[in-house]
Amino acid sequence: MKLLVVYDVSDNEKRLKLANSLKKHGLKRIQRSAFEGDIDSQRLKDLVRAVRNIVDTKTDIVHIIPLGIRDWENRIVIGKEVEEEWII
Amino acid sequence: MKLLVVYDVSDNEKRLKLANSLKKHGLKRIQRSAFEGDIDSQRLKDLVRAVRNIVDTKTDIVHIIPLGIRDWENRIVIGKEVEEEWII
Repeated sequence: MKLLVVYDVSDNEKRLKLANSLKKHGLKRIQRSAFEGDIDSQRLKDLVRAVRNIVDTKTDIVHIIPLGIRDWENRIVIGKEVEEEWII
Repeated sequence: MKLLVVYDVSDNEKRLKLANSLKKHGLKRIQRSAFEGDIDSQRLKDLVRAVRNIVDTKTDIVHIIPLGIRDWENRIVIGKEVEEEWII
């Protein structure tokens, strides 16, 4: 399944931890605070558990959105592609 | 059509302008830098034109992603819902 993860996490350390966890789950950064990638349902459960453990649900928000491949291919990208120096 | 717009815009003024334009096109803020909503193909063309006029394509990035309604309904939200004081 294709997945998009978009987040607002205020704490730098938690944000870095979250980004690293998303990478470890095979997702790829597409913007400063957005990742996409393919994942199966078991790994998705792991990912959701990991995200819940990292973020502060009182201040942060994470959207995990399944995506049709067709929808993803039809996206419109305006501007500069992501650079991996954007670690935080 | 359901649409998700996620952006990285560094300039405060441009970011506010972009958010206002997305609202004017009928989209709703779901995170600091993410909107979703329903839009028809003509309004989508207008929106893409507006976004191109606002952002700096050398530094900024905007993803405009069509979404299946089913996919949107199956999203997982972790954390605090958006508050509209988050204007910038």
